[in-house]
Amino acid sequence: MNRSLFEGGFGGGGGAPAIPAETLARLKEAAGPGGWIDDPALMGRYVTPFRDGEPGRTPLVLRPDSTERVAAILRICHETRTPVVPQGGNTGLTMAGLPHPEAREVVLSLERMNRIRAVDPLNDTMTVEAGVILAEIHRAAEAVDRYFPLWLGAHGSCRIGGNISTNAGGVHVLRYGNTRQLVLGLEVVTAEGEVWDGLRALRKDNAGYDLKQLFIGAEGTLGVITAAVLRLYPRPGEHQTAMAAVPDPAAAVALLAHLRGMLGEAIAAYELMHRNCFILAERGLGHPDPLASRPEWRVLFDLEGQGTPGSLRAPLEEALAAAMEKGLVTDAVIAASEAQRRALWQAREEMAEGLKIAGPILSHDVSVPVSRVPEFIERADRAVTAAAPGLFLCTFGHVGDGNIHYNPVAPADWPAERVKETTREVARLVHDIVMELGGSITAEHGVGRSRLAEVAHYKSPVELDLMRRLKRALDPHGILNPGKVVPME
Amino acid sequence: MNRSLFEGGFGGGGGAPAIPAETLARLKEAAGPGGWIDDPALMGRYVTPFRDGEPGRTPLVLRPDSTERVAAILRICHETRTPVVPQGGNTGLTMAGLPHPEAREVVLSLERMNRIRAVDPLNDTMTVEAGVILAEIHRAAEAVDRYFPLWLGAHGSCRIGGNISTNAGGVHVLRYGNTRQLVLGLEVVTAEGEVWDGLRALRKDNAGYDLKQLFIGAEGTLGVITAAVLRLYPRPGEHQTAMAAVPDPAAAVALLAHLRGMLGEAIAAYELMHRNCFILAERGLGHPDPLASRPEWRVLFDLEGQGTPGSLRAPLEEALAAAMEKGLVTDAVIAASEAQRRALWQAREEMAEGLKIAGPILSHDVSVPVSRVPEFIERADRAVTAAAPGLFLCTFGHVGDGNIHYNPVAPADWPAERVKETTREVARLVHDIVMELGGSITAEHGVGRSRLAEVAHYKSPVELDLMRRLKRALDPHGILNPGKVVPME
Repeated sequence: MNRSLFEGGFGGGGGAPAIPAETLARLKEAAGPGGWIDDPALMGRYVTPFRDGEPGRTPLVLRPDSTERVAAILRICHETRTPVVPQGGNTGLTMAGLPHPEAREVVLSLERMNRIRAVDPLNDTMTVEAGVILAEIHRAAEAVDRYFPLWLGAHGSCRIGGNISTNAGGVHVLRYGNTRQLVLGLEVVTAEGEVWDGLRALRKDNAGYDLKQLFIGAEGTLGVITAAVLRLYPRPGEHQTAMAAVPDPAAAVALLAHLRGMLGEAIAAYELMHRNCFILAERGLGHPDPLASRPEWRVLFDLEGQGTPGSLRAPLEEALAAAMEKGLVTDAVIAASEAQRRALWQAREEMAEGLKIAGPILSHDVSVPVSRVPEFIERADRAVTAAAPGLFLCTFGHVGDGNIHYNPVAPADWPAERVKETTREVARLVHDIVMELGGSITAEHGVGRSRLAEVAHYKSPVELDLMRRLKRALDPHGILNPGKVVPME
Repeated sequence: MNRSLFEGGFGGGGGAPAIPAETLARLKEAAGPGGWIDDPALMGRYVTPFRDGEPGRTPLVLRPDSTERVAAILRICHETRTPVVPQGGNTGLTMAGLPHPEAREVVLSLERMNRIRAVDPLNDTMTVEAGVILAEIHRAAEAVDRYFPLWLGAHGSCRIGGNISTNAGGVHVLRYGNTRQLVLGLEVVTAEGEVWDGLRALRKDNAGYDLKQLFIGAEGTLGVITAAVLRLYPRPGEHQTAMAAVPDPAAAVALLAHLRGMLGEAIAAYELMHRNCFILAERGLGHPDPLASRPEWRVLFDLEGQGTPGSLRAPLEEALAAAMEKGLVTDAVIAASEAQRRALWQAREEMAEGLKIAGPILSHDVSVPVSRVPEFIERADRAVTAAAPGLFLCTFGHVGDGNIHYNPVAPADWPAERVKETTREVARLVHDIVMELGGSITAEHGVGRSRLAEVAHYKSPVELDLMRRLKRALDPHGILNPGKVVPME
């Protein structure tokens, strides 16, 4: 189990034979006219990682435009034992939607399945195909005075099938849950090419196993999601945004409990950020810190409510005043306009940009119980500083979900080999602490190829065995996205 | 597939051989002192259905007090291929927790695993063993100023392991989701007697398949839940309750959308009720209708909020006034005190009592998309009235979840055989309409033994195949609660 970190192939497409020309020809025919690409020069966006990493390779990208065509493709893959990599908008960060570099898999892009099949405002649901872009779903919900709360940086290019297959998180998990909680039904093509119609638009259904749960977050390793019924919400009429300086991460956690006690589920986002993040943003992008006091730690949070505009302002001021009296907040600004709201969130987003400019990021997407966040940060900072002096600690995250993007930045002048070595060493330190605190080494980014060795390293034998049983039960020949999510060896 | 309704055994304990005395002796030893009952005279509550139906029989009730003992028991069951029926508070309505009458299974009661292992208010979580009674969880949450929102009539005797295994619903699903949404982690003993420690207290964890989803709602057919991490919420400081007369079910659905638009997630419960329910309550129990206008249709709903007591009163009045202008409401009362709140809900609960007194209930626990509820009621009423004149239609339900308890009551003087025949005929009519509307034939009560033939009848071959694969992958010898949830033939 004790494999080295970030190993690539791991039982993926590497071991499979090259795909025979006859199979490729059959697959093209099944995908239909305009439904495939076999010219490597046109494959760039289907094989290139969203951030960094080695590009994948494939002899064929399939782009079917209907569930029937997806099923026909899978039937051929099943018959010929051809491995297939389902792909959405290719915005993932762990290479789950990319083929291996050995060119032994076909890519199955769902991007042409981009119809919104139905919107039912009275049932608060929308039925969409896997290739619909998240931002289009937002617009379609607004058009009927409803709200789809999944919100990610990549909303303009990620596709809902990928969001569902990776159980995407984002900034609104605190109030609305992960993507899993936003899905009521699925249509899935199985490894054998059969269509499971689970497109139910129901809030309650206990008639047998809840099969959709198998496919959500499985990164295309158990079936290919072709459509989904999404849950819509009332459109919030009122928003408030505040940025508050806090003495330390423990105060940030206590402040969240304090705010939830007074404002309840109105808190839709709650982000913790260290000063270093803003220092790098200022250095790299010239953006000044929005808090003049430049506190070491701060939180940025959103309230959403159904009331009239402004109705949450007074409760928020009251809650912040009470928090100051308790010593949980030392300084705060409340956005007075939509422009100020946007500016505060822009600072958060540019902060992430600033990190990228500053140098190589040793990124960790971890979670721990919210109550253990302060201990995690303190222990990780201590361990990392001792093991790898010179790193710039830029910690931020969705602290309301216990999800920390623990992202030390290496000096820009470190040689690549040193960055690589340090990355391995620091990841082991950070992940060991996460596991000791009962956390997760990949909170929202998934496993894909990038975290597969970590999953093999940290999961118990019982859990790995259960995962493998599931994989074998639904994909007995291992043709669905091999070498992702579940270490089969 | 086309089996007759309400068939009993269906591949359950019936086919298994009698359990050898040696195996029973080993199981007793594994359960430990005080951990078993083999005297049939003392087994009443472990084998008697909560409502009606034939009692089960078993040679042995096991009552282990630790996960280790549960695992030891399962290891023996695995080795000896002894079927085992996990049981919580035995308050289920579909006989999922009962042994078959052939006495070929042991019962595994989790009632002595009743410790609250941890409460973490800062993480809003509580870790409990499977045998903790729901009402105790409510109290433990209140003790740290938190709220566990699962609310069922049986809260004083149902146990959380059973709630999780049946994905219990209740009246607060609209705001907080089913039990599935309230569970963050599980500890499960597998069919082989291994312990899977999935007791994570995390809001985000995408490190591999979300295995807990397999066991939630599986009614003990895939593993035995021994402990869980539950999600807590801020304790609402403000409650409002209203009862409103509506012109028809379509207006009830439109009113819900109207209220959600103005009050959002504050709506924690939303129940639709027909006048006949109150007529029977008055006839049987002498309780007068709380609405003097005695409307044909009405809704009862709760608001919950974080504000100070009374803060939701004005928004509620405003929303109801606007609804009256739109013609969605013809009459309404808002509870002016805690006593009045209780009285309105008591009327709802006594209404269900009134039905039982009036005569045999032909109960259906169905769901459809919320937008299809009016069509469902209209079509079902028409079909049932035509096929079985003389039934008294007493429809009510959690309409905010699309969940209707469609419960015609037969005249008390009908002979048992006529009731039985009519029950079969009406169930087929009602369930056919439900399926045509994309609904579920068992929304919150689960499958157990009572609805197994219906599942076999209505599920697609693809879905049945997926369910069977899952069952075989996790319980290859079929020893976990055989003859429940998944028709294996």
